[in-house]
Amino acid sequence: MMELKHTTFRKEDLQNLDTAYRRNFINSLSGYKSINLIGTIDTEGNPNLAIYNTIIHVSSNPPMLAMLVRTPVKPRHTLTNIRETGVYTLNHIKQEFFNKAHQTAARYHGKKSEFEIVGLKQWYSEHFKAPFVHESPVKIGLELREEYTLKSNGAILIIGEIVEATVQQNAILSDGLVDLGVTGTITASGLDTYYTTRKIARLSFAKPDEDLDVIG
Amino acid sequence: MMELKHTTFRKEDLQNLDTAYRRNFINSLSGYKSINLIGTIDTEGNPNLAIYNTIIHVSSNPPMLAMLVRTPVKPRHTLTNIRETGVYTLNHIKQEFFNKAHQTAARYHGKKSEFEIVGLKQWYSEHFKAPFVHESPVKIGLELREEYTLKSNGAILIIGEIVEATVQQNAILSDGLVDLGVTGTITASGLDTYYTTRKIARLSFAKPDEDLDVIG
Repeated sequence: MMELKHTTFRKEDLQNLDTAYRRNFINSLSGYKSINLIGTIDTEGNPNLAIYNTIIHVSSNPPMLAMLVRTPVKPRHTLTNIRETGVYTLNHIKQEFFNKAHQTAARYHGKKSEFEIVGLKQWYSEHFKAPFVHESPVKIGLELREEYTLKSNGAILIIGEIVEATVQQNAILSDGLVDLGVTGTITASGLDTYYTTRKIARLSFAKPDEDLDVIG
Repeated sequence: MMELKHTTFRKEDLQNLDTAYRRNFINSLSGYKSINLIGTIDTEGNPNLAIYNTIIHVSSNPPMLAMLVRTPVKPRHTLTNIRETGVYTLNHIKQEFFNKAHQTAARYHGKKSEFEIVGLKQWYSEHFKAPFVHESPVKIGLELREEYTLKSNGAILIIGEIVEATVQQNAILSDGLVDLGVTGTITASGLDTYYTTRKIARLSFAKPDEDLDVIG
């Protein structure tokens, strides 16, 4: 097989890149991202919606997720609302509304919420204050548990506990896995590129000296 | 359009789930994950390779990524090696070797490295101590910068600076974006399900009161 050509960037090369080039390049290096719409509400009851691509699993018991929020140099409604109310929601994105989700990243300044501006419906559950996205097949309600400020660049890591999850019923498999093919959840890379997926396989738990099985 | 049925799990429901069910369920709630093979080397020169799905972008200048590593209750070669040598590599996974990548999660105890056990080739660059995966279309070399231990569950957040990146040349677009369709990078959900992707669209930067353009 012919080997494909590769290019190596060293530290100095990375430092000397044009700002926009470096932003695109570095943002695509970590691979695909978990993208979600984060719903919050301020103390006056105004909802807010913003797309985030920095979400990771922390633990399943207690159920916790982490999210990295960039330095608050401009008013950051999402972070302010989370700190003031202690709650936020995480909502999966589908191909049907990926452009609306992307548009929530614009820097709006007025009182009108992104829900209204981009055309997504708010949905409230009985016991949770922050708004969910009606159109999302997976809607998660979280309570703020911890915050860490990274010394390197001032970004803030938010740790939240999942206290509520509303999931499209036919996507929940018998062993608990939510089938993201059935929900139609999409993924992204870089800052602006969106993808649907096709399952390769679900594999059995890896053990030394045992062959893997395809289990789904 | 007929509305699909949804199921809501509240805090008590989540607490009462069977352990395996909860692990599958919660692990799929954050959406797709950035999966990568992490290459390290110990102080005696023994290489180690392990799959991780908890990687997020931190900043592009300086170029930094974060990775969450679970509590070190058992010997964690990856974390020990990173702490002792200060360096590690992150390598994209392709469909051609996703089963080998999955198998690196098995708890091996001997001296034989996962590279040898699963059948992936080590590759070393001139100026970097930790091993890269020869078969990976994107190979990133990082230096450890910071560590945070989460109070909630003892997991450790590792912040690394990208000091080297070797990327399949024909996948780098003119504005710096690495096209993960060209590299054939795959994604995952839960703990065991792997996916290829198909691009929906690349969208222009979102601005208030401006329509989005498809730019790729």
